[in-house]
Amino acid sequence: MDNTLIAHYIEEISGLVTSRLRTIFPAEWEIPVNLQESMQYSLMAGGKRLRPLLVIAAAESLGGSREAALPVACAVEMVHTYSLIHDDLPAMDDDDFRRGKPTNHKVFGEAMAILGGDGLLTHAFYSVVEAHRKHGVPAEAVLSIVEELSQFSGPVGMVGGQAADMEGEQGITSLEQLQYIHKHKTGDLIVFCLKAGGRIAGASAAQLEALETYGRNIGLAFQIQDDILDLVGDESKLGKKTQSDVKQQKVTYPYFIGLDESRAEMERLTAEAKQIVSAGLIVEPDRLLQIADYLLRRDH
Amino acid sequence: MDNTLIAHYIEEISGLVTSRLRTIFPAEWEIPVNLQESMQYSLMAGGKRLRPLLVIAAAESLGGSREAALPVACAVEMVHTYSLIHDDLPAMDDDDFRRGKPTNHKVFGEAMAILGGDGLLTHAFYSVVEAHRKHGVPAEAVLSIVEELSQFSGPVGMVGGQAADMEGEQGITSLEQLQYIHKHKTGDLIVFCLKAGGRIAGASAAQLEALETYGRNIGLAFQIQDDILDLVGDESKLGKKTQSDVKQQKVTYPYFIGLDESRAEMERLTAEAKQIVSAGLIVEPDRLLQIADYLLRRDH
Repeated sequence: MDNTLIAHYIEEISGLVTSRLRTIFPAEWEIPVNLQESMQYSLMAGGKRLRPLLVIAAAESLGGSREAALPVACAVEMVHTYSLIHDDLPAMDDDDFRRGKPTNHKVFGEAMAILGGDGLLTHAFYSVVEAHRKHGVPAEAVLSIVEELSQFSGPVGMVGGQAADMEGEQGITSLEQLQYIHKHKTGDLIVFCLKAGGRIAGASAAQLEALETYGRNIGLAFQIQDDILDLVGDESKLGKKTQSDVKQQKVTYPYFIGLDESRAEMERLTAEAKQIVSAGLIVEPDRLLQIADYLLRRDH
Repeated sequence: MDNTLIAHYIEEISGLVTSRLRTIFPAEWEIPVNLQESMQYSLMAGGKRLRPLLVIAAAESLGGSREAALPVACAVEMVHTYSLIHDDLPAMDDDDFRRGKPTNHKVFGEAMAILGGDGLLTHAFYSVVEAHRKHGVPAEAVLSIVEELSQFSGPVGMVGGQAADMEGEQGITSLEQLQYIHKHKTGDLIVFCLKAGGRIAGASAAQLEALETYGRNIGLAFQIQDDILDLVGDESKLGKKTQSDVKQQKVTYPYFIGLDESRAEMERLTAEAKQIVSAGLIVEPDRLLQIADYLLRRDH
């Protein structure tokens, strides 16, 4: 596999998404300056843009248009960003730094961090509707995307995973409990990305199922990798204190099954993800295959 | 006008909405217990259900179905409830009581209050889509409702109004500034209710405009009334300390134009609202007329 090609693709999508996010609020909207700055600060704080990448790669894997996928790609990045802002708050994980920069509430204060998060979450749904308004994605497909964005990021999805994580800080006692948290806190939004990209390209039910399984697998692999990197990773690359989870006595994957077994599980999940999208249903699986390998190899 | 009739209508709708909100999350969803309890606590904390009432009354004023309007009515109540939970947080207004009960974070802690609010906001959009899924409201109309719920409750709407209010605590120096806050913090979501109800009933552009103007007027009248009641109201009826805004040196409508002038302005706005929906475009305006009068007379 040519690593240069996928690195170039990732950079291209990341640039496109970042550029679009910079003007995500209509210019004529009168948004209070502090609120606008709070939202833009975190949107531009240098994330990997992994979730937008997955939306666009899924759409393109079925011959869908990158332009049509872009509003949904931006929506999922807004949801991801809001979740980071709220997770970092003193009442939650109480983090002062993220990706080497002061967290939102350290810069704008807690009130504006809460409101900035609320604003990004709310505006994500506006952005989804643009797929229909500006790019002609059928209304039925866009409604399904709205429904799934709500479900996968809401009380039975990401918010539920975060709530279970907060409760679990009093003691995660089983791998099953940890898997529940990983599945919902991180995995659900990744599954959403794949399905949404598929819907934009007019995927069949069978194609959506293949994309969902691929997403479920790489989502869990991604989270196990996070657990591993947090344990053994290089501080400068992660942009936050390593072993922070250990110090806070947070229980992670390697804690339950060991480092080697965690790595093996991650590789097994990735191989299965690749096998599923290579089975014939997905017309152009190359990017999805490359992304699965790329995530396996990442060091931050 | 027969007061008994509108009181009965309000009670009927309130009961319907409360009953539906009790089971608003699909029974098969595995939501962490604390999160579920946090959301239900505030949903059931005894609000007036004014916003759902407006959605349903607007739909019925154009011959729309109450059942079809119910998912959107519940959505707007979830958005309103989340905004109260977040506004009450220590980093925001720092309120210990609302409607005579401990605020969400006093019962469930700050983390679960933040997540409960996030969960309600997110799930509101799921509920909107049910208008299409379960009641056959056309996908195009429901997409417009999603778009407007996002716009009117987001950074250029309710969240923007709250952000301006937080900034303004360092000093509101003009009536215009106060009007901006009232318009967005309270008014926008009320306008949304009227338009959404109209869309469910298949309103024309002219009908939507009439409903919007009605909503804009009663929304501002409602907020001026809140300012007045806060100054002169009876503590037991409001369920929170009166004159709290004065003590916190919060600047309100009567502060700028006096109590009498505030009352006159409120009556003028209400009269204009009633005139607009009586002009022929709205097929059955009776409920909207009664609601405008009811809001003018309320003492809590």
